[in-house]
Amino acid sequence: MTYTLVLLRHGESEWNAKNLFTGWVDVALTEKGRGEAVRGGELLRDAEVLPDVVHTSLQRRAINTAALALDAADRHWIPVRRSWRLNERHYGALQGKDKKQTLEQYGEEQFMLWRRSFDTPPPPIDDADEFSQSGDPRYADLGDEAPRTECLKDVIARLLPYWDSAVVPDLREGRTVLVAAHGNSLRAIVKHLDQISDEDIAGLNIPTGMPLVYRLDEDLRPTVPGGEYLDPEAAAAAAAAVANQGR
Amino acid sequence: MTYTLVLLRHGESEWNAKNLFTGWVDVALTEKGRGEAVRGGELLRDAEVLPDVVHTSLQRRAINTAALALDAADRHWIPVRRSWRLNERHYGALQGKDKKQTLEQYGEEQFMLWRRSFDTPPPPIDDADEFSQSGDPRYADLGDEAPRTECLKDVIARLLPYWDSAVVPDLREGRTVLVAAHGNSLRAIVKHLDQISDEDIAGLNIPTGMPLVYRLDEDLRPTVPGGEYLDPEAAAAAAAAVANQGR
Repeated sequence: MTYTLVLLRHGESEWNAKNLFTGWVDVALTEKGRGEAVRGGELLRDAEVLPDVVHTSLQRRAINTAALALDAADRHWIPVRRSWRLNERHYGALQGKDKKQTLEQYGEEQFMLWRRSFDTPPPPIDDADEFSQSGDPRYADLGDEAPRTECLKDVIARLLPYWDSAVVPDLREGRTVLVAAHGNSLRAIVKHLDQISDEDIAGLNIPTGMPLVYRLDEDLRPTVPGGEYLDPEAAAAAAAAVANQGR
Repeated sequence: MTYTLVLLRHGESEWNAKNLFTGWVDVALTEKGRGEAVRGGELLRDAEVLPDVVHTSLQRRAINTAALALDAADRHWIPVRRSWRLNERHYGALQGKDKKQTLEQYGEEQFMLWRRSFDTPPPPIDDADEFSQSGDPRYADLGDEAPRTECLKDVIARLLPYWDSAVVPDLREGRTVLVAAHGNSLRAIVKHLDQISDEDIAGLNIPTGMPLVYRLDEDLRPTVPGGEYLDPEAAAAAAAAVANQGR
């Protein structure tokens, strides 16, 4: 008996295309991103990896990626669960900033620290900032839990309670689970599953729109470390491109 | 204290456009239908009738209408609940048949009996029929409950348990509830809310893609009988067009 988990990072968003830090800003998919989502669903359909339940963040780019992929896989009708705990890392005061400009302004070391260090968050965003989520009704219930910036360590801390209380029970029921989320919330899950060290996780990049399939054993450990992309060549090329953002 | 319920019939589907009986066949929206769904969401946004939770059928045209409308209203992130009990009426052996041909073949009286009589279902569909849902995984759990044909009375009988157990509790929590469904499942809800007689319901048509807003009192009775369309002139014209299908 193995359990099946599929991780799917949203397709290209408007701000991926513009090379801006996005975080919790709720931008839409581009046409290319919509196409990636459909292609991801076709890969699931062709591989007969058919989700029984989907978990998404509260962000449009993940929600729409899930909807497009499931429609293409003829699984649009499955139960849907959503949580802010699957959201992208909050990028703090960097939200809305150009990645290339930020690199030039702060230098390579600070830039990579904010992007990839495990425990150094960017400066917090001001509630009055145009890219703050202060006042957004979907986060009204969070109160003091609502982040104003996050490092990957923070993402893991707020994600794991949802993993344990919502995703794991679906897996234990034998359901094929699709998690449609974001670069950093998915890195958090991969780090947890593959027990990747705080140092090594910096080098792990997840491409957009490519289903990553994990078969998990009774202890929810991957039977194949790192899982398997349904289209491994395309995934490797895309992951390399993510690593070079801002260059 | 009033409760707010929004009913939304899916936008034009491929088979609405071709004038075929659809029922449980899982056809997609047309481009026009997608536009109707977006317009419905814009009406909700502009009227500030903002759903807190959405209920849909298990059918693509309702699921995608809900997704497009909620995205346009910036409410894509709300909880989603789905049930086969909100599905369109099962049209039995008529599924996949041309409405105009059926009218010519069987005559006006039989045609209108199948379309609008309260308690006369069409002949049941054969499991081997290409338009049967036998073997569809989304209905695998239904067993003997899976219909092979339905009249409106049957739709009401299978819908009301879901209304009572899933929709009413959301309303009682004070949530603005969106139900994205189908011509006949929404007629079933309207008949129940407005206590319309078995005879009079035959004359009630619900247009596609037009949000119909009910404010309900403590006893879940409409404060305005029949509810209110957010765009009443367009709704009246569209309802007249529905009534003339097959002519």
